[in-house]
Amino acid sequence: MRVTSSTALLTDMYELTMIDAALRSSAASRQSVFEVFARRLPPRRRYGVVAGTARILDAVEAFRFTGAEIDYLAGAGIVGEQTLDFLREYTFRGSILGYPEGECFFPGSPVLTVRGTFAEAVILETVVLSILNHDSAVASAASRMTTAAHGRPCLEMGARRTHEASAVAAARAAVVGGFAGSSVLEAGRSYGIRTIGTAAHSFTLVHDDEEAAFAAQVEAFGPGTTLLVDTYDVTRGVERAVAAARAAGGELGAVRLDSGDLVAQAFTVREQLDSLGATSTKITVTSDLDEYAIAALNAAPVDAYGVGTRLVTGSGHPTAELVYKLVAREGADGRMREVAKTSASKESVGGLKVGGRVVEDGRAVEELVVSCGTVAAGRAELDRAGARHLQVELVREGGQIVEEHRGDGALERAQERHLAARDELPYAAWRLSEGEPGVPTRHEAV
Amino acid sequence: MRVTSSTALLTDMYELTMIDAALRSSAASRQSVFEVFARRLPPRRRYGVVAGTARILDAVEAFRFTGAEIDYLAGAGIVGEQTLDFLREYTFRGSILGYPEGECFFPGSPVLTVRGTFAEAVILETVVLSILNHDSAVASAASRMTTAAHGRPCLEMGARRTHEASAVAAARAAVVGGFAGSSVLEAGRSYGIRTIGTAAHSFTLVHDDEEAAFAAQVEAFGPGTTLLVDTYDVTRGVERAVAAARAAGGELGAVRLDSGDLVAQAFTVREQLDSLGATSTKITVTSDLDEYAIAALNAAPVDAYGVGTRLVTGSGHPTAELVYKLVAREGADGRMREVAKTSASKESVGGLKVGGRVVEDGRAVEELVVSCGTVAAGRAELDRAGARHLQVELVREGGQIVEEHRGDGALERAQERHLAARDELPYAAWRLSEGEPGVPTRHEAV
Repeated sequence: MRVTSSTALLTDMYELTMIDAALRSSAASRQSVFEVFARRLPPRRRYGVVAGTARILDAVEAFRFTGAEIDYLAGAGIVGEQTLDFLREYTFRGSILGYPEGECFFPGSPVLTVRGTFAEAVILETVVLSILNHDSAVASAASRMTTAAHGRPCLEMGARRTHEASAVAAARAAVVGGFAGSSVLEAGRSYGIRTIGTAAHSFTLVHDDEEAAFAAQVEAFGPGTTLLVDTYDVTRGVERAVAAARAAGGELGAVRLDSGDLVAQAFTVREQLDSLGATSTKITVTSDLDEYAIAALNAAPVDAYGVGTRLVTGSGHPTAELVYKLVAREGADGRMREVAKTSASKESVGGLKVGGRVVEDGRAVEELVVSCGTVAAGRAELDRAGARHLQVELVREGGQIVEEHRGDGALERAQERHLAARDELPYAAWRLSEGEPGVPTRHEAV
Repeated sequence: MRVTSSTALLTDMYELTMIDAALRSSAASRQSVFEVFARRLPPRRRYGVVAGTARILDAVEAFRFTGAEIDYLAGAGIVGEQTLDFLREYTFRGSILGYPEGECFFPGSPVLTVRGTFAEAVILETVVLSILNHDSAVASAASRMTTAAHGRPCLEMGARRTHEASAVAAARAAVVGGFAGSSVLEAGRSYGIRTIGTAAHSFTLVHDDEEAAFAAQVEAFGPGTTLLVDTYDVTRGVERAVAAARAAGGELGAVRLDSGDLVAQAFTVREQLDSLGATSTKITVTSDLDEYAIAALNAAPVDAYGVGTRLVTGSGHPTAELVYKLVAREGADGRMREVAKTSASKESVGGLKVGGRVVEDGRAVEELVVSCGTVAAGRAELDRAGARHLQVELVREGGQIVEEHRGDGALERAQERHLAARDELPYAAWRLSEGEPGVPTRHEAV
């Protein structure tokens, strides 16, 4: 599911009609700065997790209007001839600065900064937000779940509860948030994610009895496989599962519990396994888990968590609330100036910004956001405040993608980066309950 | 975004490992019946809306393991050689019966029935559920919103708040639920959906002042365009908007309000427009709407609703809770028998089923679900009960897709079908509040 064809129509129509009108007023060519940020975090969230960066870079590269896209736009009469000419030649030649994948963010963090002409930068709004809002929502939920799991592996199994392409992106975002594997094969192919899974209840039910089903599975995958033991009676299921593995000359790898009271069952089944001498056989649980259920299962003898629905739907918050706003643009005099909407609600802070994290004794204490005329000036201020710089170059001026942020190893690095950034947060940030962001955001201007 | 490449890896790994094991036990070739149904509706929902049928048919057709998929599976060692041979030759040759797109469903409704060998039918589980759960969740939310809008047009604008491919499917599902258009260009290209949109706040901000922005937009799209009037001061914005259209020799098409108290603003702006003589100028509102906000705006002078986040995230329920369960399969004696999980929770009713709706005096009064040995026997029972048959043939025995359920006109027919099915429900089913399903489901066996 890597982006292989054009992503240019994954775009709200108004991006193109704005270009159409701006080409007439000459505003289209004004140098502009767009910023992606969150005004707030969803309830109960203490931090957000940046995810989707690698997919954004693929999408920006594939953002080209080929003959097929132009034909559609021309046929539908959406924009005029001048705009079609602009789109035919379109390729992003600006620059993108951003928090690297896996980094934590807070309200006001300048998560992504897109610079270029108004036309070339505004047009990326929809697809950039689609990717960041989806992937960050899932990664943020995943991070809470892996925090709650205290080192026990979490496995992503939610494909059936989200759009089929989202499922692949969700698996990837889950890994950014610390997950150890996914059930989706396309996630294995596209991103090298370890895939997992053995059998569903239907596999037991299609056989004449549980013994026949377990024997067939052990024959195919050896005694080290995971057997689903709750199709009929769990106690009989566990007995048969251990026996099936031993008949094949080994000890059973694991049993899976997918229904009922998981905490109580985990204790009962662990006791039964131990009494059968199957002390190495593990227990995986998989029914309707979220971070709270995982936390509740912490005291139970469980070895792995399979998480579905609640992970891929962002555990109550299926979309991050990231927005893409024009914060500065060139004036008629050629000088850059800050801009911001000023009516009623939805205000924002204008101007180019850099983000830094102030860390004291190994603990993050502040998200410092500096409004600045240039990145260099902002960074100097971060240095003065002793803040770790949070933005990296993702696309170089001229449109060249910085390859280390996608492709081989990028996902593993993002996970490592996330776990390190999360470890650095104060204890309160890891809590699942209602509360303030993990660290406060302070705005400053230079 | 039509499915043009293989959909075969949009699949949970366990579907393939089950086939691997079942090929050894010979269960793989047992004739099987899988049923998609919902155990319950999400809180506050009185009915569900079937959506995604056309996309499922495309996905089933594209479910082929080409060299690339086989190479991945072989390289990752996921299944053995015998299974790879099976997959190389795989194409669905069973049959699919289902509620047509747009039809309403209730707990226990047999929304989709997939028949074939165990192996050929189990393998479709993940992608079928991904599509149905996503698209039905969005269509169900859309239907509540169009009910609340009482005939005022609802427009889909949520692309930026969901995965970029989900956005296209969500636009389609929204139309099934009664929406009149979408902002996503790919939805226009792929499904012929009317696309809408004019400009964002950034367009106003990139110009030196609001007058310049409005003039540019009116020059590009004529006075009939929609101007966004809340970047600075709304009252001044409305004044300038009307003036910009008149300067181009016409009356302004519409103003858009995207922030603040929309109910209060709609009244103020309507009054202002009327006092300016712009009585034909319409008002579109677009900020954080859902079915409740739309209902609250009903008394306000609003002409159209643009709905984003809450639509594409299923208004609190981003996934329908549809499951895909084995309900009957061939035994060793060659005869079909009902099967069902019997432990703890997640029970279901075994056996092939047909669904019908009992309608009295033009109002639906019951969802009748008949467990039956054959579809013909079940339908005879529906006829006896005077129930409208709800299932249609989507894929004919042997794997031939019934073309009328996808392609040209299918989406329009699905919307018409939905509006008719919804109209037939009792008044209580249209309410937005907590309550029972719109009609009760009755199970019967013949």
